[in-house]
Amino acid sequence: MKKIINNPANFVEESIDGLIKSHPDIYTLAKDNNRVVMRANKASNKVGIVTGGGSGHLPVFTGYIGKGFLDACAIGSVFASPSVDQMVSAIKNADNGNGVLCLIGNYGGDVMNFEMACEMVEGEGVKTKKVIIADDIASASEAEKEKRRGIAGMIFVFKVAGAIAETGASLDDVFKTAKEVNNNIRTLGVAVSPCILPEAGKPTFEISDDEIEIGMGIHGEPGIKREKLRPANDLVDDLYKRIIDDFKLTADDNIAVMINSLGATPLEELYIVSKRVNENLSNSKIKNIKTYVGRYATSMEMAGISITTLKLNDNLKKYLLAECKCPFWNN
Amino acid sequence: MKKIINNPANFVEESIDGLIKSHPDIYTLAKDNNRVVMRANKASNKVGIVTGGGSGHLPVFTGYIGKGFLDACAIGSVFASPSVDQMVSAIKNADNGNGVLCLIGNYGGDVMNFEMACEMVEGEGVKTKKVIIADDIASASEAEKEKRRGIAGMIFVFKVAGAIAETGASLDDVFKTAKEVNNNIRTLGVAVSPCILPEAGKPTFEISDDEIEIGMGIHGEPGIKREKLRPANDLVDDLYKRIIDDFKLTADDNIAVMINSLGATPLEELYIVSKRVNENLSNSKIKNIKTYVGRYATSMEMAGISITTLKLNDNLKKYLLAECKCPFWNN
Repeated sequence: MKKIINNPANFVEESIDGLIKSHPDIYTLAKDNNRVVMRANKASNKVGIVTGGGSGHLPVFTGYIGKGFLDACAIGSVFASPSVDQMVSAIKNADNGNGVLCLIGNYGGDVMNFEMACEMVEGEGVKTKKVIIADDIASASEAEKEKRRGIAGMIFVFKVAGAIAETGASLDDVFKTAKEVNNNIRTLGVAVSPCILPEAGKPTFEISDDEIEIGMGIHGEPGIKREKLRPANDLVDDLYKRIIDDFKLTADDNIAVMINSLGATPLEELYIVSKRVNENLSNSKIKNIKTYVGRYATSMEMAGISITTLKLNDNLKKYLLAECKCPFWNN
Repeated sequence: MKKIINNPANFVEESIDGLIKSHPDIYTLAKDNNRVVMRANKASNKVGIVTGGGSGHLPVFTGYIGKGFLDACAIGSVFASPSVDQMVSAIKNADNGNGVLCLIGNYGGDVMNFEMACEMVEGEGVKTKKVIIADDIASASEAEKEKRRGIAGMIFVFKVAGAIAETGASLDDVFKTAKEVNNNIRTLGVAVSPCILPEAGKPTFEISDDEIEIGMGIHGEPGIKREKLRPANDLVDDLYKRIIDDFKLTADDNIAVMINSLGATPLEELYIVSKRVNENLSNSKIKNIKTYVGRYATSMEMAGISITTLKLNDNLKKYLLAECKCPFWNN
């Protein structure tokens, strides 16, 4: 295992500490829990936006804290849910009397623990709402959309919810908009090579030198099919068709697109993918108002990509493009 | 070779095309050369800032075009110098009568071709100056600093020169400031695993499963020493001491720091490195005014990191922090 780390048991704490030391104007540690990160300058008089999930996906989840984005995040071990206590801390630290919206990637442990945490804080008078984000079209059919996993599309929900919360909108309004974004996102990925878990010291999955897996999850969950590596354009056309068909995107729809690296896949390859995606969108007369290209939701050094579409209306577009202050989002 | 690409022969053109299609508000192709990228909105009445170099290092070089950054870039094949013709095109396209500053990473072909290109355009009345960037302390001694290679520190030169040019400063003044930044940067890297050249289909170097190479160049050039992988803190302390000693940084100096991934090394590891670097700086009472963490200068999917320090005065600090418009720089 060739990682630039110290004791694998300290991997999470040290990376959180480094994040805060690197960007002290953005992030700080919650006083009551050393695996809860919150805004360095706590917002006042707005709905709090909270998330949480396993480590190993930076910038997901913690990275997206900042003005116009998230307020607090509960951080689990690598690929593991944070505890109920951590979530309670994140929610309480994000609350300033206007209620808290929890944005939760659809993973069993995360959902269950957030449900318990919300019940507990409600008992203490903190009003909460939850949106369970489900954008991975490989993980369940359109008919069972709510069973889908949350992957790179989560970031669009964080961004739009964070922007509308910043305007002073009510919990109900922020919740409604976040739900709308969740309904409007579709993501499909392809894994090319695995990452290695720091404590286990072994790869998350095995795959042959000439194989890829379409739809594999960011923790190595099984995808739609394993197949031989093929040219980027063929692969992109396949992913694109599945995404567009799933949501029935049609001519004149406005969308934003995210071309995401799972980690090791370099920008050069992302742009080769983005070229083809943008050509396909042009051919379909779907209007792409903004392309995001980079490492937005990763599995450490896993190689592979995902493509996310977000269908926009004027309202969502305004909040997507609103300025924010976060090291991982370029305005 | 497991890359998401089409015909390897089209790797460079397709990635450039994708860059432009993804960010049409920032980048455009020069009309006279399909491997020269320039600002989508050409600046007027300012010194032009030009660079150029091999592909495979995104965001270096082309990515750093934008308002307050570079004006044009000549793009070579993977790890190969652009031609004199391309450089002539980049310089002419960046010129608007105020002269052009060429910022050149210190590699034989790049330097030689830029020298010829400058001579050619001077004959046509375009005034030019050159700064040859040399920040890699592994590649030559302090006494022979001008022989050092240009690596991640190049980006600090691009940023500061781009910002001062944007104010309407003269070619002489922009040149002087860029030279000052070049004198004030020090970088040292460590390679952990190689990348694969798309056309050759084989790794740039070979290294055992438990080895790393300190000071290896971004094209696999030999470093200072090959050694067994050791804990991140030990490794960082070694790199840190070499950098601080080389430039004789002392208490109360103001600096900026860049913790750069060569590609595959994930953010979690970069932050573990950044934690230790920032702790060392604190102990040395050196004042770090800003930490940049991410993929700034890469070798595609190579794993490894580099650490860059830039010594600042008030003037350099102002230009480093000045706003710019570039997808790869977060203001």
